[in-house]
Amino acid sequence: MSQIIEDNEVDIVIGALRSDLTTFMEEWRRIFSRFHLIVVKDPDLEENLQIPPGFDYHVYTKSDMDQILGSTTTAISFSGHSCRYFGYLVSRKKYIVSVDDDCIPARDDQGHLIDPVAQHISNLIHPATPFFFNTLYDPYRNGSDFVRGYPFSLRSGVNCVLSCGLWLNLADYDAPTQAVKPDERNHRYIDAVLTVPARAMMPVSGINIGFNREVMGPALFPGLRFSGEGKIRWETMEDIWCGMCAKVVCDHLGLGVKSGLPYVWRGDSGDALESVKREWEGVKLMEEVVPFFQSLRLPLTAITAEDCMSKIAVIVRERLAPLDPVFNKAADAMEEWLKLWETVGSDV
Amino acid sequence: MSQIIEDNEVDIVIGALRSDLTTFMEEWRRIFSRFHLIVVKDPDLEENLQIPPGFDYHVYTKSDMDQILGSTTTAISFSGHSCRYFGYLVSRKKYIVSVDDDCIPARDDQGHLIDPVAQHISNLIHPATPFFFNTLYDPYRNGSDFVRGYPFSLRSGVNCVLSCGLWLNLADYDAPTQAVKPDERNHRYIDAVLTVPARAMMPVSGINIGFNREVMGPALFPGLRFSGEGKIRWETMEDIWCGMCAKVVCDHLGLGVKSGLPYVWRGDSGDALESVKREWEGVKLMEEVVPFFQSLRLPLTAITAEDCMSKIAVIVRERLAPLDPVFNKAADAMEEWLKLWETVGSDV
Repeated sequence: MSQIIEDNEVDIVIGALRSDLTTFMEEWRRIFSRFHLIVVKDPDLEENLQIPPGFDYHVYTKSDMDQILGSTTTAISFSGHSCRYFGYLVSRKKYIVSVDDDCIPARDDQGHLIDPVAQHISNLIHPATPFFFNTLYDPYRNGSDFVRGYPFSLRSGVNCVLSCGLWLNLADYDAPTQAVKPDERNHRYIDAVLTVPARAMMPVSGINIGFNREVMGPALFPGLRFSGEGKIRWETMEDIWCGMCAKVVCDHLGLGVKSGLPYVWRGDSGDALESVKREWEGVKLMEEVVPFFQSLRLPLTAITAEDCMSKIAVIVRERLAPLDPVFNKAADAMEEWLKLWETVGSDV
Repeated sequence: MSQIIEDNEVDIVIGALRSDLTTFMEEWRRIFSRFHLIVVKDPDLEENLQIPPGFDYHVYTKSDMDQILGSTTTAISFSGHSCRYFGYLVSRKKYIVSVDDDCIPARDDQGHLIDPVAQHISNLIHPATPFFFNTLYDPYRNGSDFVRGYPFSLRSGVNCVLSCGLWLNLADYDAPTQAVKPDERNHRYIDAVLTVPARAMMPVSGINIGFNREVMGPALFPGLRFSGEGKIRWETMEDIWCGMCAKVVCDHLGLGVKSGLPYVWRGDSGDALESVKREWEGVKLMEEVVPFFQSLRLPLTAITAEDCMSKIAVIVRERLAPLDPVFNKAADAMEEWLKLWETVGSDV
């Protein structure tokens, strides 16, 4: 029913937006020390990174990006939170787990420190069940099963390729919501993992995810960026966009996406009001983006994530680009990413 | 954002499969004493019901059924767990909450006794969000909200008309699963409610539900029954069938279905092995039923649950009935139910 994943099949990818990673790394030491880490330095960050000893890591910087991208790439930017995608590109592992550098392992509802990497891996090695909803959540979990009425032919499930974790303390709200509720913190630990049903669209947050890089790598890229975008999560949209692409690809290919555990503890951030003042384009764009992806259907000839993304780029250019030039740039980024993925992948 | 439901807008419907309801009623006294109760006696049960004093209730028996059904009805049977549907028919309230007579209020993960009726009502008065998945579960719950990327135009949600609760102790498994794991009990209290996304099919269990009777009554009926069906939940299928109808109706009409809280504590039942020996037809039938409902699309002219159910009956007869005569009988039951609903409804 499930495979085993060796530690050396997993890369932990950290996008470093702050130079001093000491506290972050120490909080994760017990977990991260078992894995190879890819640390990608935000190309806008000038200071040297501070990383404590005792980890197996490789730091990638602006010069690595320049070397790989050359002068031809224009639509893809790895600045800010998008720097992590460079790590996805240069990894040679089957699986990636990635968390923001302001997140540390959370404690469960019993107060025990959890291992988010182990949970992502568990989500990825156990099947997903996108074609029929199981009311008792993950049927493969110890002590659970498929409920009455669940067709037996669907009980073997499908390959799970994307695991979306959640956040305690500061939840992943957008700037307007955060500004309306500056003091709200998430303290509810919901001890569940579920498969997001096929054809249900969802906002994938890049803060805390694990995925099968071999299968889904072509779909996880920094595609949608705003002109005035800063370094704060609630100003970004690139993960939401590529999450919608990834979900459509999974639905088309019969692969699974899970949401729920693991939680990370997310540290407090800046002033959301400042972000709201900048008039966040994301609010307006999602009104176009969601119906677009909901109605998107791919041809049967698309049988890999590469095929699917290539088709999606064409359709984005046809249907969304006329509404806003940012979508044309997103389609450019998708096509450039696919080329990069092929080039960098064949370098091995 | 949400209405208020008065206690006198709710009927509690209890299908009595056992004659002595004393323990059951005492366990629910604190909650049930606020509401009017409709107790429907299984027409196969011979002994008199024992109900302790102090409740506002009306008992319906076989003679009430005979009086309303007359001699014309043949496809609908109210025996066994299906007796509760007679209560749905004769109720004059807007909302119904119904639990099996082997279930008592559960305790939450803090050990506090919960109020399942209050939770069903809360699920029904707060909107549902079927068109986009919110990773933090119910966005209307205190301390939660819509996550980043959730379109603002979808944040007002839609009317929730069906609330499906869960079970601690004995989970609602089918006979084969129960037989394989005779000692497995569900002790995991997941403190969450979620909207089941549009177009995602699900197995609705009738054990512990609340619904808007005015809107959904025509879809909640005993339609699919097996020849050798006994009095045990894991041998029944009528709730799974009408739950699939209800979900298709909700998806078509833009209404919401929630799953999760409240839990009830479900007492132990008989020997699942005995049921498995009878060769449960449900296992085979679901293989046809699920793809059928997944591909079902209703015409835009269907604008009420009645319209939808009438169309579904026609399509069941066309596409499913040739596979097994039980589906023809289900279509008969659907059409008879719609007539009954109209007749009994106009009697008021």
